[in-house]
Amino acid sequence: MASKKNKLKVFSLGGLGEVGKNMTVLEYGNDIIIIDCGVAFPQDEMLGIDLVIPDFTYLTQNKNKIRGIFLTHAHEDHIGTVPYFLKEVNTPVYGTRLTLGLVGNKLREHGLVSGVDLICLSHGETATAGCFKIEFVRVTHSIADSVAIAVQTPVGTVIHSGDFKIDYTPIQGEPMDLQRFAELGRKGVKLFLCESTNILAKGYTMSERSIGTIFEKVFEDSPNERLMVALFSSNIDRIQQLLNSAVRHKRKVLFMGRSMVNAVKTATELGYLDVPEGLIIDVSMMRHYTPNQLVIITTGSQGEPMAALSRMAAGDHRQIDVVPGDKVLISASPIPGNEKLISRVINDLMKQGAEVLYEGLMDVHVSGHAKEEELKLMHALIKPEYFMPVHGEYRHLKHHKDLAVSMGMPKEKIFVMDIGDVLEVSNNDAKVNGTVHSGQLLVDGLGVGDVGNIVLRDRKHLSEDGLIIAAVGVTMSDGVCQIISGPDIISRGFVFVRESDELILDATSIVTETLFEMEQKQITDRQQIKNRIRDDLKDYIWQRTKRNPMIFPVLVEV
Amino acid sequence: MASKKNKLKVFSLGGLGEVGKNMTVLEYGNDIIIIDCGVAFPQDEMLGIDLVIPDFTYLTQNKNKIRGIFLTHAHEDHIGTVPYFLKEVNTPVYGTRLTLGLVGNKLREHGLVSGVDLICLSHGETATAGCFKIEFVRVTHSIADSVAIAVQTPVGTVIHSGDFKIDYTPIQGEPMDLQRFAELGRKGVKLFLCESTNILAKGYTMSERSIGTIFEKVFEDSPNERLMVALFSSNIDRIQQLLNSAVRHKRKVLFMGRSMVNAVKTATELGYLDVPEGLIIDVSMMRHYTPNQLVIITTGSQGEPMAALSRMAAGDHRQIDVVPGDKVLISASPIPGNEKLISRVINDLMKQGAEVLYEGLMDVHVSGHAKEEELKLMHALIKPEYFMPVHGEYRHLKHHKDLAVSMGMPKEKIFVMDIGDVLEVSNNDAKVNGTVHSGQLLVDGLGVGDVGNIVLRDRKHLSEDGLIIAAVGVTMSDGVCQIISGPDIISRGFVFVRESDELILDATSIVTETLFEMEQKQITDRQQIKNRIRDDLKDYIWQRTKRNPMIFPVLVEV
Repeated sequence: MASKKNKLKVFSLGGLGEVGKNMTVLEYGNDIIIIDCGVAFPQDEMLGIDLVIPDFTYLTQNKNKIRGIFLTHAHEDHIGTVPYFLKEVNTPVYGTRLTLGLVGNKLREHGLVSGVDLICLSHGETATAGCFKIEFVRVTHSIADSVAIAVQTPVGTVIHSGDFKIDYTPIQGEPMDLQRFAELGRKGVKLFLCESTNILAKGYTMSERSIGTIFEKVFEDSPNERLMVALFSSNIDRIQQLLNSAVRHKRKVLFMGRSMVNAVKTATELGYLDVPEGLIIDVSMMRHYTPNQLVIITTGSQGEPMAALSRMAAGDHRQIDVVPGDKVLISASPIPGNEKLISRVINDLMKQGAEVLYEGLMDVHVSGHAKEEELKLMHALIKPEYFMPVHGEYRHLKHHKDLAVSMGMPKEKIFVMDIGDVLEVSNNDAKVNGTVHSGQLLVDGLGVGDVGNIVLRDRKHLSEDGLIIAAVGVTMSDGVCQIISGPDIISRGFVFVRESDELILDATSIVTETLFEMEQKQITDRQQIKNRIRDDLKDYIWQRTKRNPMIFPVLVEV
Repeated sequence: MASKKNKLKVFSLGGLGEVGKNMTVLEYGNDIIIIDCGVAFPQDEMLGIDLVIPDFTYLTQNKNKIRGIFLTHAHEDHIGTVPYFLKEVNTPVYGTRLTLGLVGNKLREHGLVSGVDLICLSHGETATAGCFKIEFVRVTHSIADSVAIAVQTPVGTVIHSGDFKIDYTPIQGEPMDLQRFAELGRKGVKLFLCESTNILAKGYTMSERSIGTIFEKVFEDSPNERLMVALFSSNIDRIQQLLNSAVRHKRKVLFMGRSMVNAVKTATELGYLDVPEGLIIDVSMMRHYTPNQLVIITTGSQGEPMAALSRMAAGDHRQIDVVPGDKVLISASPIPGNEKLISRVINDLMKQGAEVLYEGLMDVHVSGHAKEEELKLMHALIKPEYFMPVHGEYRHLKHHKDLAVSMGMPKEKIFVMDIGDVLEVSNNDAKVNGTVHSGQLLVDGLGVGDVGNIVLRDRKHLSEDGLIIAAVGVTMSDGVCQIISGPDIISRGFVFVRESDELILDATSIVTETLFEMEQKQITDRQQIKNRIRDDLKDYIWQRTKRNPMIFPVLVEV
């Protein structure tokens, strides 16, 4: 047992003041455990970036203290950083069976097959990691086998909600273990970390089962149509409901999209999907069936340009054409930022003659995140001494604080924090005290963290006005700079060159004149000459075009 | 009068299958009139582009036929192309007083002060242009002085709705002239072109006046707070309601943002805003007032990074800081694509301690566009023989067609068209027959149409992975290519160079080796050498980084 003067440190390296890359750390004495290890998708201004992961420098610097990663569920914003982290720090990864199944797929993609210690815990089971005793508590969410995490620490119980909604009638397994949360609450919970994604939505979310009723109605209303349904591949329970409807209406099912096929394969193998023999067909068999004998289940619910649905809509799919009479159901909400991509897909599908059912037109989706009243229920069951809202932009965290205050919590016991802020919890106190290093690392190809603000600023500059290269060969003999070759002007992303002969010719003259002036003034400082070429070209180009391409004077000295 | 065999041609050069750059053309014999002449905002993939305007080549080729431009109202998507068009074709511009006032500002910005014939028409007045007789019919919208346009043509009456909502209690002037639409309908309308923006919304839009009630409530609920309200500068009626509340609650008003100040100035001069003496103060006077004696009315309701509100939220504004106790009302809906920008501003404001009221939290905005039931009312009043839905993506036009069918119109009398498609209307028939040249021109700085797909593709490439320049001086004497200077490697937007010494050194070696091989093989073809350098570098970079920068081999031959 650690000494009495130790305090529990709680901090997040991601997921506060932002959406995604969720990662929360509990540290006490020589022990650290990590709850979730997710990625974020790049912001619009992060040009060319594939993924964003938390800067976990603090953890690599304290790797000897780390006792394990505990995963709440298998969504990317909770597991996506696991491979990047394990490359730096080898530590056991705990999760439920489906979570570890999907993490396993991810590790294989990163070539991390052996040497990783994946430890399966079921709901209600516990593990010991250093001074911490960790319990998985069943929650319901938009992916099966999700858990909240209750940690017995030397200063008391800490509960992290993970992502959840309160679904009393889930598609598979038991409902959320509300009794256990109540029991933990009754015994006393020191600190509650609760997700805030849907705090701005009033009321309750509907059960996932309500979507099954809607699917049934769509199947019934479509006696002749081929059906296509786009949804997240991780939404196994929703896929199950589609399969159930397909069986009832004697339709065969095709899965389209790599992530869909992989997720279905893993979920089936692990027993999370019940797929009757002969229900699934391959695309090559499609021609043996009439449209009303088919359901196509596909990726692309966010309008992702490379996903199966978008390619079918645009007429670019190798195997499936959308035809008049098709009915397409997009069973998802747009993630903020994806609205225009989804609109494009809807328009393309309708142009091909398909009928499209999507959110806004009808209820085709339910959220996986607790709305206001469900959050209140959790607070009422757990009644924590201290509360730290997590998973959300600043406004979500702030509104979540207001909710807790409205239920009677004292303001000073609620901590709206930023990533890196450290909450110190002792037996009789909690306060934010100091910070650990935190931030974001941008993943671009194989590079992790080698693209920063300077590179992004240059990419933005290049993206707006392109570039001009002015290459010239010079001699500096006799103390004067003289042109012996060029200047040659090359441009990209600036103007359509074939129609801009005059502009390019003028640019050549500008460079020649500038160099002649340098010769006259007997200036031979390379940097000075290059700066003058850049400035003169820049002024000319701006005056002529009101554009500001990046200018590269290339001086090859012989 | 034109010969009997002539048909009326109706086509749009913008606003069909897209949002924005509205421009509709009516042509009969030797006469052409244009209804609206707007811009669109660039799509996400149009990197560096400022504006998009319709390709109006067909009109410049037929400029001798053009009898005038008729503007329905002063929003950018209806007037923004006017200066670009007038630079090519000088033709009279007809509009209501406020519309022409705001068009005048725009023309002055483009240096088009003299020689432009602006002709003011009031609601109910008519003009003759060639064989057409054009009447302005009063509508209500989110900017004052909006009209629909009824055109008497040799084949019958054509009505273009412009943008409208049905507001029975507008802030200024009369309600929409429903009687006149009914009268025209009763006499017989050949073709109705109706906007489709809000077709997907059920029910009716609320009156603009309902926002005044909300403003009053906010003023009443804020006895101590400084108020800030962000809205579109063109929403003069909403600004009037804010001024009214400010007077009632004895607050002074500051206007922030250039477009806000300009719009208020023009609207006040033309009598569309009633501003009591002494109500408006300058920012320098602010310190003489307590927070609850102030209202700041500002641009930035779409989260535009350079707008006054965003700069205040980020703490970047020279004159105004947001402080705890401020209450900020964002009185607008996010235009699709702007959601994340607006979220950022809301979070920034809240971090500074402000309370923020925005759509989703409460009703702080009403739309300016007719919802489903209002559209039905217009169809019921006008009962056209033929119908062409305009202003919308394909899905909006298609749903608008479905609405008309649901009201009893025969499908074959409704034309869902694309830009450039020509609808030919004769006395006893209408059909889509042929196309005119159409498309989009991208405006980038001073350039109109000089940026096309190749330039955009290059910008995208540069934005994702940056560039590498490999510059080398060579001689080709004696039939061999020999390095005499370099190679020098320059990169931008690729990796952070200071931390990538090894990569850059390796790239230098690759180029040296490639050139040595060229020397050995006695290859002296410049293009062949450059291609080899590009390919070798590309392979190496991809293998090392999984990135694909644009590579420029620069061979300076001496």
